Amino acid sequence: MDHDDVLRDGEVAVPPPAAADAGLEFIGTIHSPWTSRTETPRQGSADGPTFRIEVFEPWVAAVEGMEVLERLEVLYWLHLSRRDLVRQRPGNDEGELRGTFALRSPLRPNPIGTSIVTLDRIDGANIFVRGLDCLDGTPLLDLKPAWGR
Amino acid sequence: MDHDDVLRDGEVAVPPPAAADAGLEFIGTIHSPWTSRTETPRQGSADGPTFRIEVFEPWVAAVEGMEVLERLEVLYWLHLSRRDLVRQRPGNDEGELRGTFALRSPLRPNPIGTSIVTLDRIDGANIFVRGLDCLDGTPLLDLKPAWGR
Repeated sequence: MDHDDVLRDGEVAVPPPAAADAGLEFIGTIHSPWTSRTETPRQGSADGPTFRIEVFEPWVAAVEGMEVLERLEVLYWLHLSRRDLVRQRPGNDEGELRGTFALRSPLRPNPIGTSIVTLDRIDGANIFVRGLDCLDGTPLLDLKPAWGR
Repeated sequence: MDHDDVLRDGEVAVPPPAAADAGLEFIGTIHSPWTSRTETPRQGSADGPTFRIEVFEPWVAAVEGMEVLERLEVLYWLHLSRRDLVRQRPGNDEGELRGTFALRSPLRPNPIGTSIVTLDRIDGANIFVRGLDCLDGTPLLDLKPAWGR
């Protein structure tokens, strides 16, 4: 769990999502130097450490052509996050109380994380990038070229 | 289906994803002027039409605090897309053949679309934005503040 089980002052939870409208397959794993949320930075940096994104079969063939990209968008599943908060107090108990959609907190009805990262190199099923901020073992959902944002 | 059932020259499909590792709840609907993929632009524009994003209960309380945001990230489910292509020829039969992760095509193992949009206004459960490119009736997965990208 990425948040105390006890709600912070003013936080509001609803019944958890039914999570039955569509299903996801974990297509890889993100290998990260961060093993606990307390040591993980709030936003990744292009100057930060290299992360290895491991793509599982049968999706390795889908990596072909990525080597020319400079920036990628990575989608991952925030597997430790509770999904029932509609209003939350992020960071610490002194954070401002806000609706979940006004925050990039990992606690959300569909806990999908998105990051724009810099491509370092590709070695077969392994994609090395900089600029991520997720925990070691985070399940991979998707990789795409970043728009020119 | 967002693609001919018949594979284009050189395209490769694999068995479809098990889609059983995690479940999604559709938390709203995107109301769009585009009703077929052929009339939908490849990328939304801030000068383009206004889209209405309708948030379902019990998630409307999670909208609180979004009114101060200028740019949002919208995540949605590409509900018409096949999920089994690892190598594809986008756009038309003359497009270049590439791995799925080297493309922003809607055809992907986990067909999640992401867009950065400009917030126009909020009226209760309805969030009006510009810069989307998805079809009318697309299921909503998440809303977050955009990073300063």
